[in-house]
Amino acid sequence: MSELNPWLNIAPDSDFSIHNLPFGIFSLPNQRPRVGVAIGEFIIDLPAASQAGVFAGLNIPPVVLEQPQLNDLMLLGKTLSLQIRHRLQQQLCDATSALKVAAGVLVSRNAANMHMPVQVGDYTDFYSSIEHATNVGKMFRDPENALLPNWKHIPVGYHGRASSIIPSGEPIRRPKGQTLPKGQSKPVFQASQRLDFELEMAFIIGKESKLGQPISTQEANEYIFGMVLFNDWSARDIQKWEYVPLGPFLGKNFASSISPWVVMLEALEPFKVAGPIQDPPVLPYLEYQGDSNYDIDLEVGIAPEGKEETLVSKSNFKYMYWNMQQQLAHHTVNGCNVRVGDMLASGTISGHTPDSYGSMLELSWSGSKPLTLADGSARSFIENGDTVKMRGFSQRAGKRVGFGELSTKVLPSHP
Amino acid sequence: MSELNPWLNIAPDSDFSIHNLPFGIFSLPNQRPRVGVAIGEFIIDLPAASQAGVFAGLNIPPVVLEQPQLNDLMLLGKTLSLQIRHRLQQQLCDATSALKVAAGVLVSRNAANMHMPVQVGDYTDFYSSIEHATNVGKMFRDPENALLPNWKHIPVGYHGRASSIIPSGEPIRRPKGQTLPKGQSKPVFQASQRLDFELEMAFIIGKESKLGQPISTQEANEYIFGMVLFNDWSARDIQKWEYVPLGPFLGKNFASSISPWVVMLEALEPFKVAGPIQDPPVLPYLEYQGDSNYDIDLEVGIAPEGKEETLVSKSNFKYMYWNMQQQLAHHTVNGCNVRVGDMLASGTISGHTPDSYGSMLELSWSGSKPLTLADGSARSFIENGDTVKMRGFSQRAGKRVGFGELSTKVLPSHP
Repeated sequence: MSELNPWLNIAPDSDFSIHNLPFGIFSLPNQRPRVGVAIGEFIIDLPAASQAGVFAGLNIPPVVLEQPQLNDLMLLGKTLSLQIRHRLQQQLCDATSALKVAAGVLVSRNAANMHMPVQVGDYTDFYSSIEHATNVGKMFRDPENALLPNWKHIPVGYHGRASSIIPSGEPIRRPKGQTLPKGQSKPVFQASQRLDFELEMAFIIGKESKLGQPISTQEANEYIFGMVLFNDWSARDIQKWEYVPLGPFLGKNFASSISPWVVMLEALEPFKVAGPIQDPPVLPYLEYQGDSNYDIDLEVGIAPEGKEETLVSKSNFKYMYWNMQQQLAHHTVNGCNVRVGDMLASGTISGHTPDSYGSMLELSWSGSKPLTLADGSARSFIENGDTVKMRGFSQRAGKRVGFGELSTKVLPSHP
Repeated sequence: MSELNPWLNIAPDSDFSIHNLPFGIFSLPNQRPRVGVAIGEFIIDLPAASQAGVFAGLNIPPVVLEQPQLNDLMLLGKTLSLQIRHRLQQQLCDATSALKVAAGVLVSRNAANMHMPVQVGDYTDFYSSIEHATNVGKMFRDPENALLPNWKHIPVGYHGRASSIIPSGEPIRRPKGQTLPKGQSKPVFQASQRLDFELEMAFIIGKESKLGQPISTQEANEYIFGMVLFNDWSARDIQKWEYVPLGPFLGKNFASSISPWVVMLEALEPFKVAGPIQDPPVLPYLEYQGDSNYDIDLEVGIAPEGKEETLVSKSNFKYMYWNMQQQLAHHTVNGCNVRVGDMLASGTISGHTPDSYGSMLELSWSGSKPLTLADGSARSFIENGDTVKMRGFSQRAGKRVGFGELSTKVLPSHP
């Protein structure tokens, strides 16, 4: 692609540059949710753009742009979404475009409400950061043998709850549940005392596969539509008591939060980097070609009620031991099928240094090293009234592609 | 309800008596799938019945009966489905009914194809049979401490895969995956050598709950629309290597099979029985009133390719330690929401005696005691070409309410 010079004024530090153009579902007051694309401080209203002739020659049934989710658009194939993206890039550089001229096509992002971008079929959570898995293993099992024997052979994952995935801005309630007080043999029922975030990213499936038919690492990118930031809320005390032998359940399924703009995988292409060396070598079905990690800066902040935010973690998606191609190939190698709208999250993304850990569990080392926030208060886990904010972006050679913000406030437990 | 004397001839041993009237999705050759109700050897074509005036006075939007799933009908509330059921019972006892008179309302079950009855949102699998959990604990952990400490406090469960739930009649392929050969430290990739069924039942959610809002044991039955037989296919060797620490994944998600007719909870009301005594006492949110187990006879048969079936297990749903009300209350006590179409399976239903175990893992005691089938062949696990059949029914005082058959053939692995 040659140099792109948009007629729209876009701040150099905007996540939503002309190189990004993520898809989302927005609504204006008293109007129905519909498909939009973010650019700078604006949203391109796709039904309005379509009506203004911006997509002339592209075969887009207008009704798919008026849906309250992206599934129907994705079902038409990634080629079409890429054509829309390319057309918008052209038109954003053409000062005579209907995008600029027609009324109501550009909407202020500040005026819009953002909704769940997709209807999630199945949600899977992986556990693919070696730093995170090692930290958890050290705390809960054996510091000398932190990684379990399967970890370097399998992108370990499990199924999570799709119904409780919510968009940025929607608050969560502190979950109640069974926990086992230290040294006791009988559980108690109470509000979680160890509510935590997990800094993750997730990819969204844009192409259906058939039951019984694996997807190879080579084919994987065809099936991946795009990505969002993902906060895998966790109640550590509930999780600890329940998770043996079948894995996390109520410690996780009360809520997961995602950022509202789906960044297409193709927009992240310029930010590909090599992944870590995998030793021992993986089985042939997990081998892959070329750079398959992505250099995406990530950060987490905590803002107590009415107070300023403190940055508590800076991490990067490039640290992942297992990449998305491997995750998808593994997930389907037994014939498991995927559907448009399925969401696959990375697992907590922790870096090497203590300030890059992706959860309070690791940052406070299970509560033994509380963090001090800007207002002087201490945090081992998340308190009521706290708002947890996650941000992510890639930047290289003047190009910036970001995810915006994922912001979630924690309310007290249901009375 | 007074005595019901249908004008239709229904065999006394039919699962689909006038006391049952389960809902399903059927199609005839070259016609679209739609809603039907099973009666004896027939299906009542609900769109046709509606057009013939059978539901006069009930407020049923005709379009919901023409959907390829029951979700839209269930979304209108269980009261309406119960009204339909009641109206059909009346009309089946009225020889002047349009049900009998109008053409095309009764369709032969033999002529119809059955489809997935619901679109499954989230699928959860519990582990609620104490006999099964004890057997598995004895085999894989410690015979003296077979049950883990949380088991009698929590209806242990985990999230499974919704996309790969298929109806009776659809074959499955033997999954491939990573397994760790005995005594070795490196996994191999191969077709599962320990393919197993799990005899389960599942209930289907018919009423939505709000995120953050628990459902009590007292409210649970309002949310439960009905039940099906459920075969939770399992690849024991894949499961064993992958499941620590986050639970089963590829060992399960290649397929689960269900029976096609959804038996309403109200049809099972006459077959309620007391559950086992729960000791230690459960936490208050898991307490319940009255009989909440159901006396449903269950059986499993294996028919090798071209051979007759051998019955390998006879069990009963009444053995469940945790009942459905408790499962649903537990699932939502942290605020997790449920949606119409969600499916919650019981876990393997094993009885006290070795001939009542609900999986080959238990029946063959991990392969150490192979079963002998009628054709003389031995089975430790399921072989290619085998068809696994599950059946279930309740019978008491001349009333029979059954689920029909869940039949699944196992094909060789994907080449």
